[in-house]
Amino acid sequence: MRVAFQGEHGAYSEEAIFKHFGKVAEAIPFPTLRSVLDSIIDGKADLGILPVENTIEGGIDQTLDLLLEYPLNILGEEVIRITHCLIANLGVDLRGVGRVYSHPQALGQCRVFLEKNRLEQVSTQDTAGSVRMIRDLKMMDAAAIASHRASEIYGMKILVNNIENDPENYTRFLIIGVGETPPSGDDKTTIAFTGNSESWSIVDALRCFSERDIRIIRLCNRPLVGKPWNYIFYLDFEGHVRLQKVSEALERIRSCSTLLKILGSYPKSRNHH
Amino acid sequence: MRVAFQGEHGAYSEEAIFKHFGKVAEAIPFPTLRSVLDSIIDGKADLGILPVENTIEGGIDQTLDLLLEYPLNILGEEVIRITHCLIANLGVDLRGVGRVYSHPQALGQCRVFLEKNRLEQVSTQDTAGSVRMIRDLKMMDAAAIASHRASEIYGMKILVNNIENDPENYTRFLIIGVGETPPSGDDKTTIAFTGNSESWSIVDALRCFSERDIRIIRLCNRPLVGKPWNYIFYLDFEGHVRLQKVSEALERIRSCSTLLKILGSYPKSRNHH
Repeated sequence: MRVAFQGEHGAYSEEAIFKHFGKVAEAIPFPTLRSVLDSIIDGKADLGILPVENTIEGGIDQTLDLLLEYPLNILGEEVIRITHCLIANLGVDLRGVGRVYSHPQALGQCRVFLEKNRLEQVSTQDTAGSVRMIRDLKMMDAAAIASHRASEIYGMKILVNNIENDPENYTRFLIIGVGETPPSGDDKTTIAFTGNSESWSIVDALRCFSERDIRIIRLCNRPLVGKPWNYIFYLDFEGHVRLQKVSEALERIRSCSTLLKILGSYPKSRNHH
Repeated sequence: MRVAFQGEHGAYSEEAIFKHFGKVAEAIPFPTLRSVLDSIIDGKADLGILPVENTIEGGIDQTLDLLLEYPLNILGEEVIRITHCLIANLGVDLRGVGRVYSHPQALGQCRVFLEKNRLEQVSTQDTAGSVRMIRDLKMMDAAAIASHRASEIYGMKILVNNIENDPENYTRFLIIGVGETPPSGDDKTTIAFTGNSESWSIVDALRCFSERDIRIIRLCNRPLVGKPWNYIFYLDFEGHVRLQKVSEALERIRSCSTLLKILGSYPKSRNHH
């Protein structure tokens, strides 16, 4: 099974693939989140994995935007604990480091450490790719933030371990593909819909679920581009679309909203709620 | 009146200050959003302005996080239309540009243009500051994304106008300071509170407002750091805290939630809803 991820070998997304599928999966790197989804459409990969939420830095907005755009479904989720390392070339010590390269999410998750040590932050596309870059360019005044595994893959030195702002640092990933996942008995569903019309608000929408004892897990929103101050809501709730009460709630939303996209029903990760 | 903003002279935040206060305001640049708030605490500025939401790229998460942390209030809001220019040194044309420097929000707002022209993106702290940098370093293979005004301030050439993904591009800013703003008759209030407990959900919280005919304007959330998969909700609703029905709704929220912070009541911008 070929599973596409964003970044380079040693990325946290790759770790999530191995945790979810085991070592039988072939993890294939792509440069951007968009190219991960393109690879499924083009048949270069069977599935893709996208980060959707981190417990320190919050939602990954571009993942939500892309889910709406592509004719693909969420088939599963995986959660991994994230522990960041400050990684450098052999011979470099912390006092010699001026700049730190990493993905903006990782820089944000380590903001307290970076500010305390007055380190300049440089945003890159990828955590593991930053390690490879400072190795390839033999940068002796810089370091990268990435995983322990990335330091091993690229043969680099860990200067400091566990530099994240808070030890309770987890990232949740979505498994994306064609088709759908049958009910497991402990599922969640993700939908996207528009709100904010005169006669229909987010409160009315949520009531469709609470009235049917469907528990809301997560609610967030993104702007509706072209309609200032209007939003697309993304809602995770408990249950599979094939449940009677879920399909009733969705019928009600469909009749009131100008847009409803069911992004997928899938088994809950054991590390989520 | 001294008003602090993040960025350098020519920044969009500075434009929002002049629109809101007129030219009598003295706009003082600071390098980070956090240092804008520190400047008010330290008495270096009377007020500060922070971007909170853009109609293409969505919420500015760090502004929400900082509002919770600092003992300051929202005193007002301002909305400005954002039109981005691709700006370079004299003698540079579009074909000669490889890299484009700007703030991540501006890069995101111009993603379609940047991808179409296969331009490498480099994140910086500031739009106007990027223009100054490519001028000071005489970079002839790079450009910056910033305002028309920034091109004039730094005497640089506009290569392309209006490169934003969508013409309906607006950013909303919050005016931050000490004290509170009295009712104007057409106000909104922003609060932050925790949800997700066993007996109390976001649906119950929103019902406190809908039952009292208080219109919800915006709802978003940030992670509650240290408690994975728990959230702090940020809610904008119509009305001033001094209204009877508003104070009733807030009493109800206070009795159910472990955290409620009233971030401020302030007159609605004419460019918002």
